[in-house]
Amino acid sequence: MTTKRRHILGFWAGAALLPQHLLAQDIPLWTESDLRQALALRDATPTDNLAYQLVDSLVTEVGSRPAGSAADPRAVEWALAKLKALGFSNVRADPVAVKAWRAGPVSVDITAPFAHRLVATALGNSVGTPAGGLEAEMAYYPDLASLKADTSDRAKSRIVFINQKTERSRDGSGYGGAVMARVAGAVEAARRGAVAVAIRSIGTDRDRLAHTGGMRYDTQLRQVPALAVSVPDADLIERLQRYGRPVVMRLNVQTETGLDATSHNVIAEVPGTDLSDEIVLLGAHLDSWHVGQGAIDDGVGVGIVCAAAKRLLDGGKPLRRTVRVVLFANEENGLSGATAYADQYKAVRHQLVGESDFGAGKVWRMRSKVHGDAVPALQQMARWLAPLGIEAGDNNGSPAPDAGVMVRRNQWPGIELTQDGTDYFDWHHTDNDTLDKINPDTLPQNVAAWSVVAWLASQSSQRFGQSPAA
Amino acid sequence: MTTKRRHILGFWAGAALLPQHLLAQDIPLWTESDLRQALALRDATPTDNLAYQLVDSLVTEVGSRPAGSAADPRAVEWALAKLKALGFSNVRADPVAVKAWRAGPVSVDITAPFAHRLVATALGNSVGTPAGGLEAEMAYYPDLASLKADTSDRAKSRIVFINQKTERSRDGSGYGGAVMARVAGAVEAARRGAVAVAIRSIGTDRDRLAHTGGMRYDTQLRQVPALAVSVPDADLIERLQRYGRPVVMRLNVQTETGLDATSHNVIAEVPGTDLSDEIVLLGAHLDSWHVGQGAIDDGVGVGIVCAAAKRLLDGGKPLRRTVRVVLFANEENGLSGATAYADQYKAVRHQLVGESDFGAGKVWRMRSKVHGDAVPALQQMARWLAPLGIEAGDNNGSPAPDAGVMVRRNQWPGIELTQDGTDYFDWHHTDNDTLDKINPDTLPQNVAAWSVVAWLASQSSQRFGQSPAA
Repeated sequence: MTTKRRHILGFWAGAALLPQHLLAQDIPLWTESDLRQALALRDATPTDNLAYQLVDSLVTEVGSRPAGSAADPRAVEWALAKLKALGFSNVRADPVAVKAWRAGPVSVDITAPFAHRLVATALGNSVGTPAGGLEAEMAYYPDLASLKADTSDRAKSRIVFINQKTERSRDGSGYGGAVMARVAGAVEAARRGAVAVAIRSIGTDRDRLAHTGGMRYDTQLRQVPALAVSVPDADLIERLQRYGRPVVMRLNVQTETGLDATSHNVIAEVPGTDLSDEIVLLGAHLDSWHVGQGAIDDGVGVGIVCAAAKRLLDGGKPLRRTVRVVLFANEENGLSGATAYADQYKAVRHQLVGESDFGAGKVWRMRSKVHGDAVPALQQMARWLAPLGIEAGDNNGSPAPDAGVMVRRNQWPGIELTQDGTDYFDWHHTDNDTLDKINPDTLPQNVAAWSVVAWLASQSSQRFGQSPAA
Repeated sequence: MTTKRRHILGFWAGAALLPQHLLAQDIPLWTESDLRQALALRDATPTDNLAYQLVDSLVTEVGSRPAGSAADPRAVEWALAKLKALGFSNVRADPVAVKAWRAGPVSVDITAPFAHRLVATALGNSVGTPAGGLEAEMAYYPDLASLKADTSDRAKSRIVFINQKTERSRDGSGYGGAVMARVAGAVEAARRGAVAVAIRSIGTDRDRLAHTGGMRYDTQLRQVPALAVSVPDADLIERLQRYGRPVVMRLNVQTETGLDATSHNVIAEVPGTDLSDEIVLLGAHLDSWHVGQGAIDDGVGVGIVCAAAKRLLDGGKPLRRTVRVVLFANEENGLSGATAYADQYKAVRHQLVGESDFGAGKVWRMRSKVHGDAVPALQQMARWLAPLGIEAGDNNGSPAPDAGVMVRRNQWPGIELTQDGTDYFDWHHTDNDTLDKINPDTLPQNVAAWSVVAWLASQSSQRFGQSPAA
């Protein structure tokens, strides 16, 4: 009784906040019943914490699960079994061809002016060194910009070191400002004749753990080994500079690249009714890097979107459109799951695509990337999220990576629920990405937000995008 | 001028705080000039930060330096060169015979019910497994007490796992309450027929880095391999328990034990005058474990005591007793430097022995362990430290490990300057023991405190201990 009364009061309180022009429009975006259900979904207080249970189960039973690794099919099996057990429909695994990468042993030593063994990791997709390793003098650059600006031959035959620092930020902008050192460092080093590139880990921590992550080669240039050292090791290299003597580094990096493998996008649905051939997509990625347990990246996203869809399934109200959970293959090393999905389902109208892939912090902002006509509808949706502490953002959203692929590739309407990422880059892509980094108390808010978004997108009388590109 | 006036005002303010019976005694403990100098030492504000410079230099030029390792003589050379360059007298290295231990590769895998590779490290002095490793079912114990209480044969032929947790505390009591799981775990496991022991790292962090540290064997029992897994890996093992299925662990630990080697206690002095054959000892240990850089344990202690002695050297006032800096060999794996020193200098009167070996936090308390007659003198010394934020403690002090050996073995008077250790066990004995964990701003307070203690101990008209044991 108490619960029911609160829902009704909450509904009217919410309605009172709506701009008059939205309330007054001829064809309402949502029925009163739909809005009432949005409130019920938002304010539900389940006694379990399904999102946390799911990520706990995934990382305990599978752990790290790079695309093409032995753990990858175990992750797919785990997901299929869980989604079926939760009662979803059309649970299936769509095959995705991947070019797998395997990281073998990595050792990095400073041999002069003083001997040190460093903590390092290969960057994703890096080639290896020759079997016996390589040794060369280091060419030090404080950041990527200084390397790009270098027109001398200083880097030639040397190991380029880029000491790019990552600033802490709530919205990930600090990462955005630093990550190109990782992505483009090998190209810039190779362009200058370097034999390898090493970078300061792209991370905001000071732990003796290196951060891996994706990087690119230019097919016109030599592919040089690329690795990251931990932040304290980068500090050490910085201190070695002041001695004014050559710093010599010895690397041995063993990797395998371009291995043909098959992974899978795992899909589950809450079927719609009158608009069941239109899809509201809640995404997360099932794969992880080889380090850590893939808890914050992105086991927790898997838990959040599955729990949000489960709330709709159990909500007792039929959906108009189909809500589809997609657990993408191989986000980390090439977004091949998202690309395959976008091609496979190109002709299917997608009402909205979103993804949870920024850790376990609370959502603090909603941004959209939809057709201009739908902006007022999205603004209205944001109003219903405000009591969760979520601000309304603009229509220049950056949906998380897999969703972003689809927004760009198929022009599907996208949504971004921006999480608080203040701590995310302390642990991102390292061995520290483990279950304990998730605060279980932050997950219900994420689940509530995604369930409201999916529900309102499903029920809206308005389409959020243009016709499908097909 | 300003500085001088503050010193004089400070002196009288301090004197006003002294208990009347101390001021009124017939033979003052210190002359007015000595007390004025104590204030000058305490309130000096040097523009450099010598303690930080020294630890920076040590960890940058040498890094980790276990007794008997290749880096050990480099550390001794570093110390001799620095102490000479700083202008100390009688700089020398006293040989110390050590039984060195070398950690080789360690791998720890869970093979059932789910495959996981864990982050682990061998405990100091542990034997290795057979070359091919060993695999056995795990016998789980939530803490050491439950293992000790187990009278069943559950641990027989198994790998004992002890999930002892370490509580965070300012004074290290949480570590004290947990560390016996590391020290005695192998004995308790062997007593019950186990084939190995693994423990949750004795640490307050949640990093994927394992904490090493000393452990013991009982010569009457089998020596079983002993290792620690990181805290998140121990959490994983705890979660695996709930599946109610056997947990199987595969270990491969390669070590070398009992290697004969020679290390050195490095010694430097500020010579005394009329009581120059009596020693005020400021200690720290030069060695470290093989992990990390040995920055907080105990490079920073080396920096602090050398800087404190340097302040006396530069203070412009002759010392009565000799202040001796001792950088001990091999504290970590057997305290052999301290034991050798205690035996070598047994016949020399030591007025006071102290050691900085609890990280880089500020000193918040002074405790003593001196002859009862000297307690009032130590209480009076504590008064002079109060403006540094240091409380007066009791006479049941626990001087840091090397100093503690001498207090127990030779009944030399000891002093403890208790540092804030709230964060110390986040990094202690791990790869995270790196320079960045030191806040340079906390070091001048440590240096000031040790310089005042050493000065007042040197100048006191009263001896703090009984006659030497010789």
